[in-house]
Amino acid sequence: YGRFGIDYNDANDRAVNAVPSTTITSRLRLQFDMSTETDGGVVLGARTRAQIESRDNAPGIGAFNGARFYASYGGFTLGVGNIIGAIENMPGLYLETRTAGTGIDGAGFVSLVTNVSNEYFNWDAYSSGLGGGGANGVEVLYTSGAFNGHLSYSTNNGAVAVDRAAVGVSYTFGDWTAALAAQDTDELWGDKVAVSIAGDLGQYGVRLAYADNEGISKWGLYGNMDIGAASNVLVWVTEEDAVSAADVLAGRGDNRDTALLDRGEGTSYGIHYSYDLGGGASFEAGWRESSADNTTVQAGVYFSF
Amino acid sequence: YGRFGIDYNDANDRAVNAVPSTTITSRLRLQFDMSTETDGGVVLGARTRAQIESRDNAPGIGAFNGARFYASYGGFTLGVGNIIGAIENMPGLYLETRTAGTGIDGAGFVSLVTNVSNEYFNWDAYSSGLGGGGANGVEVLYTSGAFNGHLSYSTNNGAVAVDRAAVGVSYTFGDWTAALAAQDTDELWGDKVAVSIAGDLGQYGVRLAYADNEGISKWGLYGNMDIGAASNVLVWVTEEDAVSAADVLAGRGDNRDTALLDRGEGTSYGIHYSYDLGGGASFEAGWRESSADNTTVQAGVYFSF
Amino acid sequence: YGRFGIDYNDANDRAVNAVPSTTITSRLRLQFDMSTETDGGVVLGARTRAQIESRDNAPGIGAFNGARFYASYGGFTLGVGNIIGAIENMPGLYLETRTAGTGIDGAGFVSLVTNVSNEYFNWDAYSSGLGGGGANGVEVLYTSGAFNGHLSYSTNNGAVAVDRAAVGVSYTFGDWTAALAAQDTDELWGDKVAVSIAGDLGQYGVRLAYADNEGISKWGLYGNMDIGAASNVLVWVTEEDAVSAADVLAGRGDNRDTALLDRGEGTSYGIHYSYDLGGGASFEAGWRESSADNTTVQAGVYFSF
Repeated sequence: YGRFGIDYNDANDRAVNAVPSTTITSRLRLQFDMSTETDGGVVLGARTRAQIESRDNAPGIGAFNGARFYASYGGFTLGVGNIIGAIENMPGLYLETRTAGTGIDGAGFVSLVTNVSNEYFNWDAYSSGLGGGGANGVEVLYTSGAFNGHLSYSTNNGAVAVDRAAVGVSYTFGDWTAALAAQDTDELWGDKVAVSIAGDLGQYGVRLAYADNEGISKWGLYGNMDIGAASNVLVWVTEEDAVSAADVLAGRGDNRDTALLDRGEGTSYGIHYSYDLGGGASFEAGWRESSADNTTVQAGVYFSF
Repeated sequence: YGRFGIDYNDANDRAVNAVPSTTITSRLRLQFDMSTETDGGVVLGARTRAQIESRDNAPGIGAFNGARFYASYGGFTLGVGNIIGAIENMPGLYLETRTAGTGIDGAGFVSLVTNVSNEYFNWDAYSSGLGGGGANGVEVLYTSGAFNGHLSYSTNNGAVAVDRAAVGVSYTFGDWTAALAAQDTDELWGDKVAVSIAGDLGQYGVRLAYADNEGISKWGLYGNMDIGAASNVLVWVTEEDAVSAADVLAGRGDNRDTALLDRGEGTSYGIHYSYDLGGGASFEAGWRESSADNTTVQAGVYFSF
Repeated sequence: YGRFGIDYNDANDRAVNAVPSTTITSRLRLQFDMSTETDGGVVLGARTRAQIESRDNAPGIGAFNGARFYASYGGFTLGVGNIIGAIENMPGLYLETRTAGTGIDGAGFVSLVTNVSNEYFNWDAYSSGLGGGGANGVEVLYTSGAFNGHLSYSTNNGAVAVDRAAVGVSYTFGDWTAALAAQDTDELWGDKVAVSIAGDLGQYGVRLAYADNEGISKWGLYGNMDIGAASNVLVWVTEEDAVSAADVLAGRGDNRDTALLDRGEGTSYGIHYSYDLGGGASFEAGWRESSADNTTVQAGVYFSF
């Protein structure tokens, strides 16, 4: 897919970080999926993506990301390589927008209850970027009717093993889906438990999510509504607790607000508007205010091909 | 497309720059174009290229370049990202060869009147290379009958804004096309005004071009002729003026010839021969002598697929 | 194609080189071939690959490798760029497995008689990797009935020319193919002569190969057998001679075993099992013990798409 638009971010300022506050944000993603089926009915496949992005007025080039390989049979799927991850794959974690966040490029994804303080995206997830090949893990997914289960595991190179293990389960009953995911890791401050319940009520959608991020709680409440035939408006608010003083002493990032500093503790909120243009294209716009007093406004188009 | 051939360049010498004077020059370009159309008739699309080159006996690998996104409706097109640029897109700027220059890889494109002294390609242009994502700009193109207009703008990151704004217009009357393009930029020595008039007279083609490159004038005269059913010969000559002494004092590159040094000032000329092999392939050969006393001779094949 | 599996390598140990001894090994390769034919019947074409690998728990990203260009007419083919190379292309050099080596990723390709001591892959070969664009050479291939001939040449940049020239010939008579290839190079210890004879006897395959790697001889004996409709078992053994003391004094790598060190001198052996799963997929497993006392065991799947 492709997407491009205008990004206003009040954290960007030529005088401060040499980036204009208003920039073009864009992404072009080419996805390559391939598979074959053995005589025994096992599907073997792989996925890789080439993605070209421009953020903060820094255009990038594209390369192929780390590949995810899989073998699936019946309701079971075994994945290896650049795995999806059980936290990442949890229903009711990301926003119900085409960008899975606010605006055109997600605007930092502050709406996720598993992103707190300076600990963002500290779980295994399919990585599309150039920074490396992503996680190098193993995972098992199981689907049976309304039930989904997911186990994932990865380990890094190093003299001491640093593992990430995660489990996720979800169940859909009627219009409602409940989900739970948890991660146990040797990484500092990386243990997580997240729960969500989401209702898809025709014209309306509502969702409540909560995560305990090794002591930092974050709540999220999300609602969206179709307006007419082509429009949808989504609003969200999250509340992030302060880190404990003991953790900060032990070296954890400090998200506590002070009289002078507005850090990550507190309330974030945002609004997103989508208008379907037909032909797989839509106009997308979003504004969000993070709990660390960062404002972004984005508007642009998003199209599939 | 693909192209490969032999390049003789007298600026290459194992004893001087460790590159053999005769090398293989090649390029393989894969272009990915994608688009969709909204219900309202707006076409949204993007282009990216992966290009693998070998020049001066240094083979490269390929990645996807920065993407150009566009939205077009009627005669208007809005482009963002790795834009084409109004100078780059000017009719009558590049040679009328398949390589847009002399020989197989363009041979430095000394035939362009906007390339002078050590100031080559100092305008916004769609970039296919690995060096970066290209310009990160915005442009508007308008076409109506015989008239074409183009406005482009880009800015770089940095504490001080360094912008490039360019405008181009062209008009075709019968066999002749007149074009004018200009660039205004905060970059040193980057302002340009270029004009051209080209005639396509069946078997013959003639073109005259001129550019004022912030004080350095360059003239170019170009002629080509079809010979028989499959051959075409093109000859060209350019004349580049000297930079002013005041500009050199102010830090501008010096192109003035001296008794000992043959620098960029003066006359460049070249000849290019093309033979159509059918099936989208052709034999291409070119020889050119630059005003800085650099000789290159190239011959090879060029093919589409 | 894609392939992924488990790799146990006793040279990997978190305490020694920070890599777990058991890791995932995987590769996804996308190959892009393109060609066109001129009116005169010459085929012009090019090949590039994008390949994503994970070895030793280090996942990589993918880019396009250096391209190989070719022009072929009748039995002749001229190749330039990332050439195949006459040694690389010799019949009877690589194993008769889908991976061309033992296991899932070739397991170091110790089965090749042209790989000795610390001098592995010191010949021109089509390179799929990210490390560079591969060789930048020229080659001519000729095929006529049962006869194949191959000449290749490449040179590197540098003040002094360092060339590699290689020649290969092979002839097939009935079930048997005999091949000879040789390389002459300015690189230290890079001259090689290799011969092989291979018989494809229906259910059985046998092969004998020998190379003189500028003084280090290596013999290889290989046999494989179909078992039932879908299985094949291959066994191999090689014997590598010691380097001469004079060469070691002159700076060549030392492969001689001592009382304390088991280096490359001596016997390597391995076994590989393949089971056809249908649909272009197969299960592949291999174990090999190198003459330098390195054990690897690999098992996984390999599939085309």
